Amino acid sequence: MPSRRAEPARGAPRDVRERGFTDRVSLQEALAWLDRHAAPLAAELVAVRAGAGRVCAIAIAAPGPLPPADRAADDGYAVRASDTLGASPYSPLSLALRGAAPTLRPGEAAPVHCGAPLPAGADAVLPFSAAERAPAGLEVVGAIADGAGVLRAGHELAAGAPLLRPGRRLGPEDVALLAALGLERAAVVRRPRVRIVVAGPKGEGARDADGPLLSALVARDGGEVVEVVERAAERGLLGPSLAAPGADAVLVAGRTGTGADDEAPRALAAAGELSLHGVALRPGGSAGMGVAGAVPVLLLPGEPLACLTAYELLAGHLVRGLGGRERSLPHAVREVEVARKLVSAVGCVDVCRVRLVAGRAEPVGGADEGGLAAAVRADGFVVIPAPLEGHAPGARVTVRLHRHEGEAP
Amino acid sequence: MPSRRAEPARGAPRDVRERGFTDRVSLQEALAWLDRHAAPLAAELVAVRAGAGRVCAIAIAAPGPLPPADRAADDGYAVRASDTLGASPYSPLSLALRGAAPTLRPGEAAPVHCGAPLPAGADAVLPFSAAERAPAGLEVVGAIADGAGVLRAGHELAAGAPLLRPGRRLGPEDVALLAALGLERAAVVRRPRVRIVVAGPKGEGARDADGPLLSALVARDGGEVVEVVERAAERGLLGPSLAAPGADAVLVAGRTGTGADDEAPRALAAAGELSLHGVALRPGGSAGMGVAGAVPVLLLPGEPLACLTAYELLAGHLVRGLGGRERSLPHAVREVEVARKLVSAVGCVDVCRVRLVAGRAEPVGGADEGGLAAAVRADGFVVIPAPLEGHAPGARVTVRLHRHEGEAP
Repeated sequence: MPSRRAEPARGAPRDVRERGFTDRVSLQEALAWLDRHAAPLAAELVAVRAGAGRVCAIAIAAPGPLPPADRAADDGYAVRASDTLGASPYSPLSLALRGAAPTLRPGEAAPVHCGAPLPAGADAVLPFSAAERAPAGLEVVGAIADGAGVLRAGHELAAGAPLLRPGRRLGPEDVALLAALGLERAAVVRRPRVRIVVAGPKGEGARDADGPLLSALVARDGGEVVEVVERAAERGLLGPSLAAPGADAVLVAGRTGTGADDEAPRALAAAGELSLHGVALRPGGSAGMGVAGAVPVLLLPGEPLACLTAYELLAGHLVRGLGGRERSLPHAVREVEVARKLVSAVGCVDVCRVRLVAGRAEPVGGADEGGLAAAVRADGFVVIPAPLEGHAPGARVTVRLHRHEGEAP
Repeated sequence: MPSRRAEPARGAPRDVRERGFTDRVSLQEALAWLDRHAAPLAAELVAVRAGAGRVCAIAIAAPGPLPPADRAADDGYAVRASDTLGASPYSPLSLALRGAAPTLRPGEAAPVHCGAPLPAGADAVLPFSAAERAPAGLEVVGAIADGAGVLRAGHELAAGAPLLRPGRRLGPEDVALLAALGLERAAVVRRPRVRIVVAGPKGEGARDADGPLLSALVARDGGEVVEVVERAAERGLLGPSLAAPGADAVLVAGRTGTGADDEAPRALAAAGELSLHGVALRPGGSAGMGVAGAVPVLLLPGEPLACLTAYELLAGHLVRGLGGRERSLPHAVREVEVARKLVSAVGCVDVCRVRLVAGRAEPVGGADEGGLAAAVRADGFVVIPAPLEGHAPGARVTVRLHRHEGEAP
């Protein structure tokens, strides 16, 4: 396939087993590769009432005005404003009180409820406080202006007004507005179907943390986990799982490193193409990527903190892109001052987990240590660019928060 | 029931139909009522791998150390560090190279892969770059210190270390850590089952926006929508839906105002108790609350923006509390300067939708106008305390964001 040949030469696969990485690609190059494979999937129609959280595939404009007709803005009596002219507590005016009717004649009033369409002829809604019921009808004790208490047709929204643009993630208020406009279905980007292949934790009795980790991350980013293949290496399922149909992306966890049994890169090269292996990222540097059966495959390290980091910086970019979301990191951010030095290696993007103590960032473990427990204890992480050897105390940094500030800890 | 009698006298129900509200309770009083009915539900056990997003019901400590045994921190050769003492490129030392074995004897080296348990006797992992394979075994060209390249048992986490506290919403890294520790199930707060009762949009051909709106909001706040009863008033289902079993909370949308057909408060009083009706909140002031069949029932206005606002400030407090979450507003916040005056009524908490333009807040519609379209166009909202008549340009305010800053618009 011509597009595969177009991959940069630096990304050519090398067997790094028992040799180590000698030439890792930059995070920027890895993201450029991902960008070429992360175009949003096709649109599908979903019921508006099940649409919250989905991503608009196309721009949506108002199919008609909102409200569709003049409506009462409050409870009261629909009247012709001119009939109330001069009314006051000292000189009340009488109106004939009638029930609900499509048309209101001069001299008449009809009770209306907030949100209900106005009868034809009415142009104002008199509040209950400005009228008293009398045996003969209604005593109006206050005048009202034309249009008072009325929501005009199109007041909220004119027909054709642009509402939502492509890429908008539908919030509760969005689905409500579409429903109010009478739209029953919306075109949204199909959710990416993701197969998770856990190459298998190494060692007797080892437990898999990567399957639950990646499942939760994919769900957070709007993907649909179609399958979790466990202990794939020892079951001989590593190769077969890469090119199997039914997925828009495959994430492999583990066996990406430089050991003799690190079969994932070789399996990907055999099933399709290993485009890049080894990224200047810490932790997570043994990540790789390629294509099998026209589907992008991400190789993520098996060590859970490295797997988490490589997901956040690489795989998530792909999952979010396929789903039509903003590809960049989805975390809420906060600018803070560094309290204790954040260490990084020059030439490598370091992802440093930090805690916020009195509003300042402190590292939790080093970039390579602490494991998952460091991530659990941290409030977020700082991405340190490759040219820097860290951030000194007092420097301002952007923390990507695990939980945004309104959330419980 | 004694607890009902304990409700404050000010909250005693009054029939406000065709009279209007004369005495609205403060938002603070309404929240105090909700707090008395929003204790977290009982715990249930869920599979850890399905636990992301759920709320810890109890504190969780590490059941054992992590890693459970010494492990290789990198790919390389497991050795006894003392066997490498003095090795250099100019005076390499030879070790016998053996395959995987549970125990390493002096003078031996065995290949290990990152994350694998160390053989007994080994105390360091020599990187590939510090050794060369030779016909007789391994040539060590660099010395290594005891413990280098090794993750000690308990290095990440000691047995018994506190991990997660009650109320913690499980993130991807949390479920991964629990899985790594060998926990298969976690005790989480049961998700609140919520029945949504749409009293029914008023008027011919009116469309229901409140059902989709409330469904999305309840899901966002961790609740489970067990039923959406549509057009409940005209189908005679308003009363029966309030006390039906199977829900932990009931949200009624519509028919809460002062019109003759505003039957929701009367229905609640008949089915149980209407504790409060009318809150000094704009929009959303016709909200009410009470209890039916021991289940809290929230009455929310039918106009969708008022419904949204009353959900956010009142009903959400209940849903989040029942589910063990932080009860306060869940939105990310941002402190910004006011660009154009935000108007409010003294004595009433006003919720003003705002856009951020060049980092400053501008109102979108007034508190009572604009409807849902204002919420869709807005970036968030500002809650203006009752004593204020608004915020002047230049004032600093807290904006609750519909979408936090890392998210797509």
